[in-house]
Amino acid sequence: MNNFEEKTINTKKIFEGKMIDLQVDEVSLPNGEVSQREIVKHPGAVAVIAITKDNKIVLVKQYRKPTEKTLVELPAGKIDQNEQPLAAAIRELEEETGYTTKELNFVTSFYTSPGFANELIYIYITDTLEKLETPVQGDDDEFIEILELSLDEAKQYVEEEKIHDAKTNYAILYLHALGRM
Amino acid sequence: MNNFEEKTINTKKIFEGKMIDLQVDEVSLPNGEVSQREIVKHPGAVAVIAITKDNKIVLVKQYRKPTEKTLVELPAGKIDQNEQPLAAAIRELEEETGYTTKELNFVTSFYTSPGFANELIYIYITDTLEKLETPVQGDDDEFIEILELSLDEAKQYVEEEKIHDAKTNYAILYLHALGRM
Repeated sequence: MNNFEEKTINTKKIFEGKMIDLQVDEVSLPNGEVSQREIVKHPGAVAVIAITKDNKIVLVKQYRKPTEKTLVELPAGKIDQNEQPLAAAIRELEEETGYTTKELNFVTSFYTSPGFANELIYIYITDTLEKLETPVQGDDDEFIEILELSLDEAKQYVEEEKIHDAKTNYAILYLHALGRM
Repeated sequence: MNNFEEKTINTKKIFEGKMIDLQVDEVSLPNGEVSQREIVKHPGAVAVIAITKDNKIVLVKQYRKPTEKTLVELPAGKIDQNEQPLAAAIRELEEETGYTTKELNFVTSFYTSPGFANELIYIYITDTLEKLETPVQGDDDEFIEILELSLDEAKQYVEEEKIHDAKTNYAILYLHALGRM
């Protein structure tokens, strides 16, 4: 089975940032021709589908500068260096929602945009939440508001494009398909 | 309702590419502090859930340099300048699969990675496919192979992470939830 692999001839680093790096790779194509690939390097991300005792989904509302919109999303964030995805997921849950959990189950993972980025996101689910007694400090340039929505309310948010990103749209569809809420 | 909007103080253009641009925005935060946002600009994308007469999903296998992996995905691509998403979806379906359709229905749209990119992807579905008599030429640096999978086979591909990207994972879950295959 042909895998069409593209071999790197040369890598040109364009930018090193706080969240992403950018490079342009010169690659040799399966037909021998040479092309350029623009590649955003990202450390990977985690997101948590967190369900409260009264069957609400815990979501965070935040302004997303790239989209120039305020979006309602799963609690999520990028994986720190040398951090395991599961540990990152618990950390982000604690930082963003004030909840923690001892039981987080893996749902799926996927590349968010494999055409130009290597970001891989891991999605977990829990319905055994505990309120943290002492809140954990998150990133100091993140301004978020916590929402707890029923599945029907969340579906309405999808309809109105207040929920409007890959991981959260996936999660709402997942909970719908699960048929348990 | 607070929307936590971040006002742009200054935009620094870092890179202009074939597929993406990169800029760093200096923004004023809701608390008056200043921060930086790394922003990938993308023209937007389309993808098509294409179902054949014998109930198979038409997928394309291609090497994705950013992920260093060969992935099986919905036929998809970026929206050309001044192109409507629906027209782009039909064009990509024709270029990548050799099928066309007169009836494409909107499923959903979502930002793939709103933390660092403005890419918005529109997903459509059709089960009225016609084979093109004359194939349409796609991008000359794209090497793809067409697969037609049953829903059960596609779920197996998700399990094995051969299908492993946001739009396609969403699509397989959507077809599962629809319960019609």
